Amino acid sequence: MQEVINYIESNQQNYIEELKEFLKIPSISTSIEFKDEVNRCANFVSSKLKDAGMSRVEIFKTEGHPLVYGEWLGAPGKPTVLIYGHYDVQPVDPIDLWDSPPFEPVIKDGKIFARGATDDKGQVFMHIKSVEAFFKVEGSLPLNVKFIIEGEEEIGSESLEPFINQHLDLLKCDTVLISDTALYDVGIPTLTYGLRGLAYMEVEVTGPQRDLHSGTFGGAVGNPINVLAEIIAKLHDKNGRVTIPHFYDNVLSLTKKEKENFKLLKFSEKKFAKELGVAELTGEKGFSSLERTWVRPTLDCNGIIGGFTGQGAKTVIASKATAKISMRLVPNQDPAKIANEFTKYIKKITPKTVKVKIQNLHGAYPVLIPLNDHSTVAATKAMEKAFGKKIVFIREGGSVPIVTSFVKKLKAPTVLMGLGLNTENLHSPNEHFNLNHFRLGIISSAYFMKEYSL
Amino acid sequence: MQEVINYIESNQQNYIEELKEFLKIPSISTSIEFKDEVNRCANFVSSKLKDAGMSRVEIFKTEGHPLVYGEWLGAPGKPTVLIYGHYDVQPVDPIDLWDSPPFEPVIKDGKIFARGATDDKGQVFMHIKSVEAFFKVEGSLPLNVKFIIEGEEEIGSESLEPFINQHLDLLKCDTVLISDTALYDVGIPTLTYGLRGLAYMEVEVTGPQRDLHSGTFGGAVGNPINVLAEIIAKLHDKNGRVTIPHFYDNVLSLTKKEKENFKLLKFSEKKFAKELGVAELTGEKGFSSLERTWVRPTLDCNGIIGGFTGQGAKTVIASKATAKISMRLVPNQDPAKIANEFTKYIKKITPKTVKVKIQNLHGAYPVLIPLNDHSTVAATKAMEKAFGKKIVFIREGGSVPIVTSFVKKLKAPTVLMGLGLNTENLHSPNEHFNLNHFRLGIISSAYFMKEYSL
Repeated sequence: MQEVINYIESNQQNYIEELKEFLKIPSISTSIEFKDEVNRCANFVSSKLKDAGMSRVEIFKTEGHPLVYGEWLGAPGKPTVLIYGHYDVQPVDPIDLWDSPPFEPVIKDGKIFARGATDDKGQVFMHIKSVEAFFKVEGSLPLNVKFIIEGEEEIGSESLEPFINQHLDLLKCDTVLISDTALYDVGIPTLTYGLRGLAYMEVEVTGPQRDLHSGTFGGAVGNPINVLAEIIAKLHDKNGRVTIPHFYDNVLSLTKKEKENFKLLKFSEKKFAKELGVAELTGEKGFSSLERTWVRPTLDCNGIIGGFTGQGAKTVIASKATAKISMRLVPNQDPAKIANEFTKYIKKITPKTVKVKIQNLHGAYPVLIPLNDHSTVAATKAMEKAFGKKIVFIREGGSVPIVTSFVKKLKAPTVLMGLGLNTENLHSPNEHFNLNHFRLGIISSAYFMKEYSL
Repeated sequence: MQEVINYIESNQQNYIEELKEFLKIPSISTSIEFKDEVNRCANFVSSKLKDAGMSRVEIFKTEGHPLVYGEWLGAPGKPTVLIYGHYDVQPVDPIDLWDSPPFEPVIKDGKIFARGATDDKGQVFMHIKSVEAFFKVEGSLPLNVKFIIEGEEEIGSESLEPFINQHLDLLKCDTVLISDTALYDVGIPTLTYGLRGLAYMEVEVTGPQRDLHSGTFGGAVGNPINVLAEIIAKLHDKNGRVTIPHFYDNVLSLTKKEKENFKLLKFSEKKFAKELGVAELTGEKGFSSLERTWVRPTLDCNGIIGGFTGQGAKTVIASKATAKISMRLVPNQDPAKIANEFTKYIKKITPKTVKVKIQNLHGAYPVLIPLNDHSTVAATKAMEKAFGKKIVFIREGGSVPIVTSFVKKLKAPTVLMGLGLNTENLHSPNEHFNLNHFRLGIISSAYFMKEYSL
């Protein structure tokens, strides 16, 4: 095993050069104009899996972007791990806030800067390279490995769900290994056992049937921007609680043990506020920031647009205004039920002076993972060996929507071995990935395969 | 006089062709990229004034867009009328809602469609053509005429104000004639005696110092879009009244005589709602739509933007969100005082979880014009002759910011002889101008010069 680790250590520079090529491909899944680049990225992943030594590699076409599958099943009697990740990335706007172009990777202070660096290309690449190291040094893997790398994670993994249903045998495994979450802090080995879900909606308010002069008509007609603002304002009460009926009905409370675990993390609210550049934190009254982001459901506007938004002044009353509004969900909220309650409530609070159209853009279930499975124990040992430190167990505020499907469809436990950091600007300008964590991730992945094979 | 009218009647087709050339110039004053076109438009107006017969025509450069001045002072002992108008136009977005390109004039059903058709190029052109008709038929005008046609009306007439101060002699006159308002209805001769003022503000809310992942951070940090929505929602109470302290302090009530006049107009709320395509009208409780748009001050969002506004879903919490918010003012509200109260109130209601920046983009005083002046009497006779109908007296919800300056600086009464219609989509896609009103406007202008010279 030490030889595998040595091989990984001595090949860092090559890994980084290869990762750069991966990051150069603008595989933005939400924008139709990047479709060809997303395809090119699938081909890149496919060729890297072949080069790593996987015996079967296949690109599966879908109604959306392609799925890349790889397998090596040369260890009969040993368990099978399915490694999941995604090669698609978020859009790059606002582009003018990037210090370097998002698809021209730059290394600075031990970090690689590019869209997708930490979410999720850098993390996918760790496992490809750990597999490769085993083949190069030992000629085989200590257990059976399957890869499923998708191109639609950032837009709701819509093709993966039916693909799993249709390929239960192909994807059959004993555990699913995913690196798409974050370490608790720099250099701290971390396993994530909870994820929030999502209900992402769009609300379009239409007032007058055309844009109007705000002087001639202002004051006598429902202004869709004002009405939309009033609707949004009504979605929280003065204690920061979401006002949608039945929103909190199925929310699980934190256990005593979890509360104790959270205390051990010594989270600093002050440092958190400073890092975000805000004078005061806010959120649901009576909860800490960790609880607000890990354990409590929330509602945020992700975008809003209406009327004249250029330079200068235009005295117009817009015909339409639109907002994207998403809710982060926690166990045991159901995204479809929440989307339905949201829709009913918005319709109820919208005045008759305007029309409203509500769309459910996508949803994801929240997740809680049991900590006593063999795979979790193996992952704990692997990360503690790689980092030389005691592991911490955390939850995470984001979603990896597909985890629920793996758990439900494949009846396999899931290991969330994330090597990112929440400060690495995922979904923001200047996204980056700590290259030391990239290295430790490859080593953790290799140790996991060994530990889980025992 | 009949010969002048006959000349005007027989030259309609030429006038329309010339107006088309005027409308083809995209003189959008708010957009820096159209600066050259604005200049080209000033040259066009200048050449048309020369062709019409004005003895002195001059383009005055300003810090913004140029002013076009013209004069003919060949009637000593007769009064002098200063004709004001503007050659700049509003932006064209949303461009995809135009049935034909905004700067390629099209005639359909007796209307000419183009940006600026009714606001204000078509109306400016009426006076140039009435002057021309006098020169062609009689070789002279019945009174002294000055023109001042500006290129910044749509962005607050910032250069005209200092120009007036510096050129009080040049602009000296007995009355100011302006056609930049609307007829009460198709074919109804109308004089406007009241205009609303304006305070146009921009509010920018900044939350976290960078865009954040809404999963990882959602629920624990002030979301600038949600906060901005809450601020906007707080600007009205449940009766549709603006909540800014001292907002209504100086608002004049409608006189009994005005109330009676309004009743004579037989305004149909139902027709108004239908024309706007809304199921229900709304506004300040206890007032009719005419009162809401003519006599009561209001507050409207003219634009809002923040976060992800493209197709699909992006799970982001934006760093910034911005709204343009304007208030229509009525006598005797003061735009500077109102802007100040607005700024104080927004600062007061903004939570400490975000930063707020407030800009005053521009302001305009409200106006009330006395109806017993010689110029108003002459305008009444002129329009009644041209239209062959009894005139109506109305107010108007929009602003012609410069009217106050004329009244205050030049000590001259003002005639608001507007030939537009509020249904002509000014500031909206598919702006147009009724060509019969264009014709009647040229005739009204000619009769006014005659009547006012007597």
